[in-house]
Amino acid sequence: MIGAFWAPLAAGFPGALELKDDCAVFTPQPGTDLVVTTDAVIAGVHVLADEDPGAVAWKALAVNVSDLVAKGATPLAYLMTLALPEAPERQWLAAFTDGLRAAQEAFGCHLAGGDTDRTPGPLSVSITALGSVPTGRMLRRSRVRPGDAVYVSGTIGDATLGLALRRDPSLAARWGLDAAAHASLEATHLRPRPPVALITALRACASGAMDVSDGLIKDFERMCRTANVGGQISVASVPLSAAAHAVVAQGSVTLADLLTGGEDYQVLAGIAPERAVEFEHLAAAAGTSVARIGSIEDIGAGVRVIDPAGRAMAFATPGWDHFRKEGQAPDGGK
Amino acid sequence: MIGAFWAPLAAGFPGALELKDDCAVFTPQPGTDLVVTTDAVIAGVHVLADEDPGAVAWKALAVNVSDLVAKGATPLAYLMTLALPEAPERQWLAAFTDGLRAAQEAFGCHLAGGDTDRTPGPLSVSITALGSVPTGRMLRRSRVRPGDAVYVSGTIGDATLGLALRRDPSLAARWGLDAAAHASLEATHLRPRPPVALITALRACASGAMDVSDGLIKDFERMCRTANVGGQISVASVPLSAAAHAVVAQGSVTLADLLTGGEDYQVLAGIAPERAVEFEHLAAAAGTSVARIGSIEDIGAGVRVIDPAGRAMAFATPGWDHFRKEGQAPDGGK
Repeated sequence: MIGAFWAPLAAGFPGALELKDDCAVFTPQPGTDLVVTTDAVIAGVHVLADEDPGAVAWKALAVNVSDLVAKGATPLAYLMTLALPEAPERQWLAAFTDGLRAAQEAFGCHLAGGDTDRTPGPLSVSITALGSVPTGRMLRRSRVRPGDAVYVSGTIGDATLGLALRRDPSLAARWGLDAAAHASLEATHLRPRPPVALITALRACASGAMDVSDGLIKDFERMCRTANVGGQISVASVPLSAAAHAVVAQGSVTLADLLTGGEDYQVLAGIAPERAVEFEHLAAAAGTSVARIGSIEDIGAGVRVIDPAGRAMAFATPGWDHFRKEGQAPDGGK
Repeated sequence: MIGAFWAPLAAGFPGALELKDDCAVFTPQPGTDLVVTTDAVIAGVHVLADEDPGAVAWKALAVNVSDLVAKGATPLAYLMTLALPEAPERQWLAAFTDGLRAAQEAFGCHLAGGDTDRTPGPLSVSITALGSVPTGRMLRRSRVRPGDAVYVSGTIGDATLGLALRRDPSLAARWGLDAAAHASLEATHLRPRPPVALITALRACASGAMDVSDGLIKDFERMCRTANVGGQISVASVPLSAAAHAVVAQGSVTLADLLTGGEDYQVLAGIAPERAVEFEHLAAAAGTSVARIGSIEDIGAGVRVIDPAGRAMAFATPGWDHFRKEGQAPDGGK
């Protein structure tokens, strides 16, 4: 199994030692730190129980790369523990490794090691990803400062809609979506693309950053709490895809659903005002959309979300909770 | 949960950032490589389904530290994804983190990050451990050479007996074990102690090394195959505990059971003959027992296991296979 399926994914990283040893080895470039993160994807929890194996593999890597990108770290390599409900079929392994290969090519990293076990439970993929930043320059969520402009990359809410479509494809007709919009929303859910091209701009300009994975509102609240600051987001400025705009306009889904849905895998960053123009230029040069959605304020201002009419919004559930007691959906964020 | 249970385990590692950020950061000491490994422990597969949470936590860290030690790497830190069948009780978390704290103190490392999820399956603990070696000096299993003496640390087979006792405590009486021997064998199964004190001796003297986790015979075969060499082990030289000797003498368990049982978490190393005396001295100085059990030979000699009467032994199943189709026991190695 190792030689046929896993070793080819490790071929680009010499420290993987062709997956023939107990450990991988990283010789850090002088002047760099290693940034390390870990997250698991479990069938029936973070992805549908019978999800396509290639999509599960992609997502397991993407959710980890999302954390690296938000720290300004260039993805290098990842290790994976895979728990399989049964001895894997060749076809299943081929689909899984195809998804993993596509993801690692999209994100620029390689498999460095891992472990495969059989489980009496569901498919589970736990990945630890390693990235590189200049020494001392990892972006911290705690470092945003009052006065910073708040930016978010990409669009918010598409993954939430994609999951709903995945569960009930008939929603597409009810929402008035054409086939292309339907496919695009599903793809955002199934194969999230954290903005690796934005790393240079983030390193150059961000005071602090984190990824948006458990819902924009919840993650913004977290960032403010960690940094001991207040802040506000203007909902009218939150970037939505054309499809998401259309679905909200149609009335079945609220803006609040999109702001709290999770699984966006975009970056939320604080940018000092004097860096904002440079940040927008660098993002544009990298082909990555970013939107200014609010500001960081003094702690006394609290954390506020302002609706398009200028009123403060309240949220029953600001985002994903891994241990929500009831009504937990087979989806979720990281 | 993070502040009360996990953050105290991270307090000794500044790069964990008090577990308040998306990633951990490692600033490598100049002149060192980072060594990284990952392994999971699943309830009902690697430990009994209802095993004590402290023992599960200890084992999950130990199986990873075992890989680091065998590479000559000093443990630094680890990241963990924890999949829990239900929202954890305070008491369960306290027992689990107590076991983890005891293990990280025994092995000299700290929690650096992680992720906790709910799962419809069994408890699962996936750990990625990071260690440090002088640049370019990670021990490789492929580097053992014909002429090397083969050494193993500690004793072999105790964990196999400990698991059997854990399943059926009445075996202790049948095997003629007193309470101390019974407890000692169970402890070896529940709380394996990879020989971290041996790291200095291994770095100074070993041509190559790996950990013994899936059965001494299977792992020796693997080492020889990876290094493209032959070799032999003399069974009479394999170190057994007094309790294991007694059980084998009593007749219920064979020597072959112990040599193929797995979960020893000891180190198997090739030592050039001119280094053997120094290795034994350094091991003794570190308070770690090592035994010379065989030799590495040319590939043409094949891999042989010699019984006490001087005959080559054959094994129906040389060790643990993660996807053995039938009769798979709720135990297993890494």
